Amino acid sequence: MRRTLTMLMTAFALVVSAGDNDSIVARQFFDEELVNGKSYQMLDELCNKIGNRLSGSKAAAEAVEWGKRVMEGYNFDRVFLQEVMVPHWVRGEKEVGRIELLGGEGIDVPICALGGSVGTGPKGISAAVIEVKSLEELTALGEANIKGKIIFYNRPLDPKLISTGSAYGGAVDQRHRGAAEAAKYGAVGAIVRSMSTKLDDVPHTGSMKYDSTGVKIPGAAISTLGANRLSKLLLEEKVVKFFFKMNCETLPDVKSYNVVGEIVGSEKPEEIVLVGGHLDSWDLGQGAHDDGAGCVQAIEAVRLFKALGIKPKRTIRAVLFMNEENGMRGGKKYAELAKRNKENHIAAIESDAGGFTPRGFGIRAGQKDLNTIVAWKPIFEDYNMGQLAKGWGGADIGPLKEQGTVLLGFRPDTQRYFDIHHTAEDTFDKIHKRELELGAAGMGVMLYLLSEHGL
Amino acid sequence: MRRTLTMLMTAFALVVSAGDNDSIVARQFFDEELVNGKSYQMLDELCNKIGNRLSGSKAAAEAVEWGKRVMEGYNFDRVFLQEVMVPHWVRGEKEVGRIELLGGEGIDVPICALGGSVGTGPKGISAAVIEVKSLEELTALGEANIKGKIIFYNRPLDPKLISTGSAYGGAVDQRHRGAAEAAKYGAVGAIVRSMSTKLDDVPHTGSMKYDSTGVKIPGAAISTLGANRLSKLLLEEKVVKFFFKMNCETLPDVKSYNVVGEIVGSEKPEEIVLVGGHLDSWDLGQGAHDDGAGCVQAIEAVRLFKALGIKPKRTIRAVLFMNEENGMRGGKKYAELAKRNKENHIAAIESDAGGFTPRGFGIRAGQKDLNTIVAWKPIFEDYNMGQLAKGWGGADIGPLKEQGTVLLGFRPDTQRYFDIHHTAEDTFDKIHKRELELGAAGMGVMLYLLSEHGL
Repeated sequence: MRRTLTMLMTAFALVVSAGDNDSIVARQFFDEELVNGKSYQMLDELCNKIGNRLSGSKAAAEAVEWGKRVMEGYNFDRVFLQEVMVPHWVRGEKEVGRIELLGGEGIDVPICALGGSVGTGPKGISAAVIEVKSLEELTALGEANIKGKIIFYNRPLDPKLISTGSAYGGAVDQRHRGAAEAAKYGAVGAIVRSMSTKLDDVPHTGSMKYDSTGVKIPGAAISTLGANRLSKLLLEEKVVKFFFKMNCETLPDVKSYNVVGEIVGSEKPEEIVLVGGHLDSWDLGQGAHDDGAGCVQAIEAVRLFKALGIKPKRTIRAVLFMNEENGMRGGKKYAELAKRNKENHIAAIESDAGGFTPRGFGIRAGQKDLNTIVAWKPIFEDYNMGQLAKGWGGADIGPLKEQGTVLLGFRPDTQRYFDIHHTAEDTFDKIHKRELELGAAGMGVMLYLLSEHGL
Repeated sequence: MRRTLTMLMTAFALVVSAGDNDSIVARQFFDEELVNGKSYQMLDELCNKIGNRLSGSKAAAEAVEWGKRVMEGYNFDRVFLQEVMVPHWVRGEKEVGRIELLGGEGIDVPICALGGSVGTGPKGISAAVIEVKSLEELTALGEANIKGKIIFYNRPLDPKLISTGSAYGGAVDQRHRGAAEAAKYGAVGAIVRSMSTKLDDVPHTGSMKYDSTGVKIPGAAISTLGANRLSKLLLEEKVVKFFFKMNCETLPDVKSYNVVGEIVGSEKPEEIVLVGGHLDSWDLGQGAHDDGAGCVQAIEAVRLFKALGIKPKRTIRAVLFMNEENGMRGGKKYAELAKRNKENHIAAIESDAGGFTPRGFGIRAGQKDLNTIVAWKPIFEDYNMGQLAKGWGGADIGPLKEQGTVLLGFRPDTQRYFDIHHTAEDTFDKIHKRELELGAAGMGVMLYLLSEHGL
């Protein structure tokens, strides 16, 4: 019944707010992008000329220069960098993972170090393995069973969840905290089933955290097929030990930057609407969907104003955040500077869920602002992206929340994202031109509506 | 305003019709499919063991046997074949297309014969080319300009249309009737820009028609990049002639079959709800999205009742139609037999728009039945497929319309379909397992609601 009331209220709000002119402008954004869009070409450059760009890497520095140059090339009113110190973790040589069987045979399985992990030392680590499905199982096992062993976390993403993001959210504690928790019981390593909705031989990296006080043991991801294989062999009691070797390490912090480009508002320049993605990526693949797509969509959303000759009433700003993947330093720094400079961000849009076919936006706002935005639903429904509802905004814009900023997360379809997320498979050839463009245009329209009408 | 009223009415209808039990059953369909689904595995077999299966081919006959065996294997109550004579067109050797330039140089471009075309004879055809953007331009040009030449149809799919299906619909007259119309003015061949939303070197085949009284000239599709190249060279006045060679031909009709599998209704067995796709495909690629996907989704929608132990109140029937691509003989035969046997099809669901992430269903029905179905919207919204609206049903189920059957077309996202439609690229590796499964489950739920509540 509650759902019905909400629908009735929504329907009523439409009549009040959905101006015809907004629909006409929305059509201009989509037409321009689908015919003359630059997002696909920009992403091609970022992926194929610069490639992956983990915080602190040479490529990340090149990506900063690229972002600045691109926005300057589009004649944004102002393009500037925000300095931020970022972690510098390096993977080193390709990792080795091996199941050691009774009788001396070994089976190689695809693994990769989790971001931030310590290495194993040059000789690697070989130890008996215990499979668990959750962090909680460690308590039941206790130190006596765990000490000196490798913990193998093998709870898959729940296939029944329609949103693969929810499935990811329900499993990722194993990756984030698995090594730290296992270390408390004396484990010597943690192997985590890849955070993937697909069965294949591709390991998925991603961030992990150590307790500041705890012992640091190495953490690696194993491909989903590798995890199934290991699990089956454990069940058959054929496994003696698991061996893995990785020489990743954390180097001193490096100076890096957020890249910001803006068009100053013609009527209320002091009110800012932000649109952003993160410029850094993991060091596998090309960071195409995660989050090159979000970066070029953000730049494109602003560029479309120029292309269409639209002067925004409020200031619009594209932000390419640094270090979302392993530290969130860019997002935090951005909010810190916004506060220090007494900037007023009325809303922020983030695209960090891949460049797939759009569904809508998740909105993190109070009821009044939520109603205002949801009233724009019919405008977006014409483009099959009318899912405007309360929801998650985004990681990089998250720190702006406490300044009263309304947060909006661009929501593409989720089915394909976690197939390639944080892997060597996240490459430009996985990008669909029209899908990317529809997202860029939709973000442009949301940016237009927010900058035109305010909140 | 009309839109708002519809929404209010819809919202009201929800309270009345959307039973909690239906939502629970819907969840069972999705859970079962996403965890234990067989659709992906079935399609793997159809694509990788049988491959493409143009009407009249040996593979099409194998596919009939496969469909029958699969449904029998799932213990449907009754599995049977419906005999139908189908056209038998064969492509022959790989086609050759070449732009002949001033100075004698030639540039090979990717072409393929359109389905049903006559061949060029063993020496091929070489003639001057005239580019047009529409059939209408032929009238203005007249016989004097066209006689003895090749007409090159080069109107692209409109990128501004959000539905690529609409864009296809707006361009496909060039392929269907281009050769027949050009022949009336004495043209010796027709080259048609591929019906694709992508720029690449892959030619797209598809059906064409000759007038029963007219001269038959060969018709071929040229890849979109090939078309751009030819157009540019024509503009630069560098082209002397276009040469193409193809030895396709139409052989005598062949006996083939629709494959039907059903579960008899427990309360109203005389009322039938159909779910179907087409078993034939073009002779390039594997017919994975077009329409292997629809076939396995149809079988799966029925199989899910068995897997969940649900006895349908009305008879449910999976139909694998033969010859959708180049004759529609199967769909016509099915409706003819339904009429002759005085069967009562209350509704028919068709999946023939690819196995991509679901958006909803297009509904072809009177207002009362439309309202009944649209009232189920909230059930489907939980699975991101709540777009239930008046729309196209499907080609194969179309002939049932005159018997009063309500038609429903499964609607996946359209962005990727026309990249690969009717090409060598329509292969199993383009299928996304979860997307296919979500469609199968959604079709199962629609089949359930129709068979449970009737119309």
